[in-house]
Amino acid sequence: MKIHDITLMMEEGMTVWPGETAFVLQRDKKIEDGANANVSHLEMSVHTGTHVDAPFHFLSTGDTVENLLLELLIGKVVVVELDGQIGEVTREVVESIGLADGVKRVLFKTRNSDYWATGIQDFQEGFVGIDADASKLLVEKGIQLVGIDYLSVAPFKRSRPTHEILLAAKMVIIEGLDLSGVKPGEYTLYCLPLKLKHTDGAPARVILIEE
Amino acid sequence: MKIHDITLMMEEGMTVWPGETAFVLQRDKKIEDGANANVSHLEMSVHTGTHVDAPFHFLSTGDTVENLLLELLIGKVVVVELDGQIGEVTREVVESIGLADGVKRVLFKTRNSDYWATGIQDFQEGFVGIDADASKLLVEKGIQLVGIDYLSVAPFKRSRPTHEILLAAKMVIIEGLDLSGVKPGEYTLYCLPLKLKHTDGAPARVILIEE
Repeated sequence: MKIHDITLMMEEGMTVWPGETAFVLQRDKKIEDGANANVSHLEMSVHTGTHVDAPFHFLSTGDTVENLLLELLIGKVVVVELDGQIGEVTREVVESIGLADGVKRVLFKTRNSDYWATGIQDFQEGFVGIDADASKLLVEKGIQLVGIDYLSVAPFKRSRPTHEILLAAKMVIIEGLDLSGVKPGEYTLYCLPLKLKHTDGAPARVILIEE
Repeated sequence: MKIHDITLMMEEGMTVWPGETAFVLQRDKKIEDGANANVSHLEMSVHTGTHVDAPFHFLSTGDTVENLLLELLIGKVVVVELDGQIGEVTREVVESIGLADGVKRVLFKTRNSDYWATGIQDFQEGFVGIDADASKLLVEKGIQLVGIDYLSVAPFKRSRPTHEILLAAKMVIIEGLDLSGVKPGEYTLYCLPLKLKHTDGAPARVILIEE
């Protein structure tokens, strides 16, 4: 059994969505200054780094993040690797990957993972996202969880159609995965988000287990 | 396969250690006010709710939380239930539970779990913790991960000896578990803390899988 950690490191200066709260992590109590222990605090958007979106992120009456089912967040998953030339996940791209019947969870490894591998921290508007038509096809195929390796599952400036289609179908969305170190294939996914009450998303630790 | 979620709900007003940062979770962008999406942010001590301690919490040169091994955070665990009359985990208590040889991970279910089950949010100074002598015995027995159902593994006002002994032995400490819903016995533990860089602890989602 091998564990692959596909979570982004959370640190000050990490890439965040334009206009969102910067990630803060500060040590307030320091042993070297006479404190009994080192104690730090953090501040962040709930959509920072590797995180899940809840339906409530884009749907006013959608479920909030504590209600995402652990039975969906855990289980068999397929990691699909797209050619580095592919700039957007379209219906044709989804058709071409030939997902087997019964697959419920899919993670898209795209050229986005190169951003993490090379340490680019400036926000990249040209990241690969999933378009509206491809999102509909994922719903039709019965996919219940989709993950991608940049900070949004949707192409830049087209957030709502993709999110709305996926979230209305109660699909779990994982964003900000670092898939640079994993090969395409089958794994067991453990995506465990913070148990935040009544909110629109949550940072998560996400791993793949290779049997 | 049954999944038990042993994580505390994170919400404003939740119990925090005296003097630590209060937990904040606020929705900054609201669809009903014309925003494209609901977007929230949070602020918290890294020792809020269900969380892990890194050696650096009490040891100036100790490892920080991103270096805790996933291979330790995941694996077979024994949940031990102590009689409700027991007010402190002493050496005698550890001896009496008769941990089998080879057990590496143990979670103590104490009367602390009643605080969560009954919804008491005021900080409880009289919680059950593990004393220094019992901590030494856990180290001697080769335990590598210990969890407890209140916000510190050590009795109130005696944080340092217990933490120092456990962390110097590179034991993983999980605090703030809610074990009110689980029976004693063997499970598989998945404790996935946020991947925070170079800090003293991290909130986590923690589950037990019952085969």
